[in-house]
Amino acid sequence: MKEFPELVDKAKKAKEASRKIAVLSTKSKDKALDVVAKVLEQNKESVFAENRKDVAAARDAGMKESLVDRLALDEKNMKAIVEGVQAVIVLPDPVGRSDAGWTRPNGLRIVQMRVPFGLIGIIYESRPNVTVDTFSLALKSGNAILLRGSRSAINSNRELVRLIRVGLAATEAPPDAVALVESMDREVVDAMLKLKQYIDLVIPRGGQQLIDMVVEKTTIPVIETGVGNCHIFVDESADLQAARRIVINAKCQRPGVCNAMETLLVHEKLSISFLPEMIRLLQERGVEIRGCERTREVAPELKKATDEDWATEYLDLILAVKVVRDVGEAISHITKYGTRHSEAILSNDYANICRFTSEVDAAAVYVNASTRFTDGGEFGFGAEMGISTQKLHVRGPVGLKELTTTKYVIHGQGQVRE
Amino acid sequence: MKEFPELVDKAKKAKEASRKIAVLSTKSKDKALDVVAKVLEQNKESVFAENRKDVAAARDAGMKESLVDRLALDEKNMKAIVEGVQAVIVLPDPVGRSDAGWTRPNGLRIVQMRVPFGLIGIIYESRPNVTVDTFSLALKSGNAILLRGSRSAINSNRELVRLIRVGLAATEAPPDAVALVESMDREVVDAMLKLKQYIDLVIPRGGQQLIDMVVEKTTIPVIETGVGNCHIFVDESADLQAARRIVINAKCQRPGVCNAMETLLVHEKLSISFLPEMIRLLQERGVEIRGCERTREVAPELKKATDEDWATEYLDLILAVKVVRDVGEAISHITKYGTRHSEAILSNDYANICRFTSEVDAAAVYVNASTRFTDGGEFGFGAEMGISTQKLHVRGPVGLKELTTTKYVIHGQGQVRE
Repeated sequence: MKEFPELVDKAKKAKEASRKIAVLSTKSKDKALDVVAKVLEQNKESVFAENRKDVAAARDAGMKESLVDRLALDEKNMKAIVEGVQAVIVLPDPVGRSDAGWTRPNGLRIVQMRVPFGLIGIIYESRPNVTVDTFSLALKSGNAILLRGSRSAINSNRELVRLIRVGLAATEAPPDAVALVESMDREVVDAMLKLKQYIDLVIPRGGQQLIDMVVEKTTIPVIETGVGNCHIFVDESADLQAARRIVINAKCQRPGVCNAMETLLVHEKLSISFLPEMIRLLQERGVEIRGCERTREVAPELKKATDEDWATEYLDLILAVKVVRDVGEAISHITKYGTRHSEAILSNDYANICRFTSEVDAAAVYVNASTRFTDGGEFGFGAEMGISTQKLHVRGPVGLKELTTTKYVIHGQGQVRE
Repeated sequence: MKEFPELVDKAKKAKEASRKIAVLSTKSKDKALDVVAKVLEQNKESVFAENRKDVAAARDAGMKESLVDRLALDEKNMKAIVEGVQAVIVLPDPVGRSDAGWTRPNGLRIVQMRVPFGLIGIIYESRPNVTVDTFSLALKSGNAILLRGSRSAINSNRELVRLIRVGLAATEAPPDAVALVESMDREVVDAMLKLKQYIDLVIPRGGQQLIDMVVEKTTIPVIETGVGNCHIFVDESADLQAARRIVINAKCQRPGVCNAMETLLVHEKLSISFLPEMIRLLQERGVEIRGCERTREVAPELKKATDEDWATEYLDLILAVKVVRDVGEAISHITKYGTRHSEAILSNDYANICRFTSEVDAAAVYVNASTRFTDGGEFGFGAEMGISTQKLHVRGPVGLKELTTTKYVIHGQGQVRE
């Protein structure tokens, strides 16, 4: 494998820096975040200048305008970025918190403490705001980060990281706690994913292809923030007025995000009283609907939903609709096609609700609410590093607490094992 | 890649069975464990018969007697196996426990519930008792398991799994929740490690080579139960009498296990008053000592400790000894060579103790106690699936609680996202 001395050097220094920020007080970390927010605010013009280079290069390369839009930074974006840093300052520090402690019969006192992971590797796509967002969350949780963004944002990211490091240099936090891998060689990612001796955790932030690539190539533990093929099941006993509001919200409020609904499951007893009007309301809002055979009995003009539709996260104003016999068939469909992200039942039947919340295996299972609430902010975490759909370590929003691990600290008075 | 229909069929059935045991009551699971314990007890002769085949084959193949010993089952082992199942019955069920719950300003009630992982893949080496131990822990925590043991124990494992399934058939737990991959083709493990659609978690139980192989080959989340290169640092202010007892315990009580001490770090001020006698006491117990230069100043006959010694988990009556300047040098040494398992400081100095417990990054950090306590039983967990040295999900003993993940169950009254 090709060697990347820049990468290894930055990883090594970031790992060393991680030991320093792991033991910084909350006050020192908050002060560092405050200084960084100010430096970013005061130097936004230089960020814009570098960002313009990225945007120009992207347009020259023929990037779609919707993607250029994710790359471009303006006054409003920069304000949001700076406010994002300030928002993390007021969040509680997870480090040093004890979730459990007990005393053994032999007198040993065991306390489980939250401690930082160490060095977190972040591999991400175009948005430059991720650079600053992940920095704030990592620093507050006592972790160093090694960032590898996309080629298209390299100038913006380089300037943002430079400013963060300038800010940190004036504080107790070591600037080396943040580093950007600047090589745009594709193999540098492969090399980064092998640095198990330095990197304690990898978080890919981007589409499914990026996530799959990271999982495939690394031996470092990964938090996968995944795909959301989310369902809403409207049960026979649902409050239909609330159901209409929730279905519209889950599909239309922001269709491009992972917690938006992709398939609507409707109890067969509602196929006349509810389904046709629901379809009409969605169509009025520009939603393209693809239906199962029974859906097409009441709306023959609809395109037929295929097996592929049931399995697709559209991230768009498209919705698959299926009529089901009962809660059991709804659960089976979700088990077969769902991605274990967010699933909802709309019902007033206690037994069906209990069965759904118990049997559906997902990060978040909703009763009578929109799936759109699966979000760090909406959960009250204040900020998040994505939504985990894996089962190890964290499931659902990845907040500050989830960016820490634990260690047992055991106090004795000379105990030995018999 | 080669195809293994037996493997895929068993994994698929086990995954389906996992959905059933995930929602079994504690009472039903305990009853199932009780029935299995009885079936094993009543059929121990057939286990012995199959085990004799494995032992004979192993001897024919020239296996070392110490390894044959780990493979062989006698009345005493079988009693321990059955008692192990019974011991799990009395442990609290982690499934359905809520660690956190809160209500959002919009009225959404969010509860984080413990739920089973689903299907756990276990890849393990010779000891047949692992077959039954992992089954009990998996069933109690609501998980199905797919087992792949070693070739040398295949007859014993096949009979144990057959009996477990006979037992389960008489209970509410589906027999398919336990399956043994019987193919001894080496590539079957590779194929198993790719079954991400069925297997939610992989736990390798064996030596470093096995663990590394699993981590390298799988894209399924892994709990690594790793190597323990454990240290004890005897500080200047230590209670020397307690220190002698603890050092002897940590090295000699059971040298072949991961929480035994492998390197002793001694404060330089103790190099005359403590070190020579400590060396003598260890040598009296058959410990071979390899010393740093300063250790060899007081014990010139010792073999010189090399860089390799500092990095070695001997799992034997061998100990590396190093004289250090202070707690800082002790921490640096541990940071450089430790495997983040169990580390101890013996001291009466408050500041040094605080620094050690704060800066040492390990699953378990001890003050004035033997490292030998890092163990599910000693921690009060009752039973364990190994000691995790990774940072994701679980660090330290892997008990029943750590064999579960979480899901958020959110109850609303029609809430939609603004």
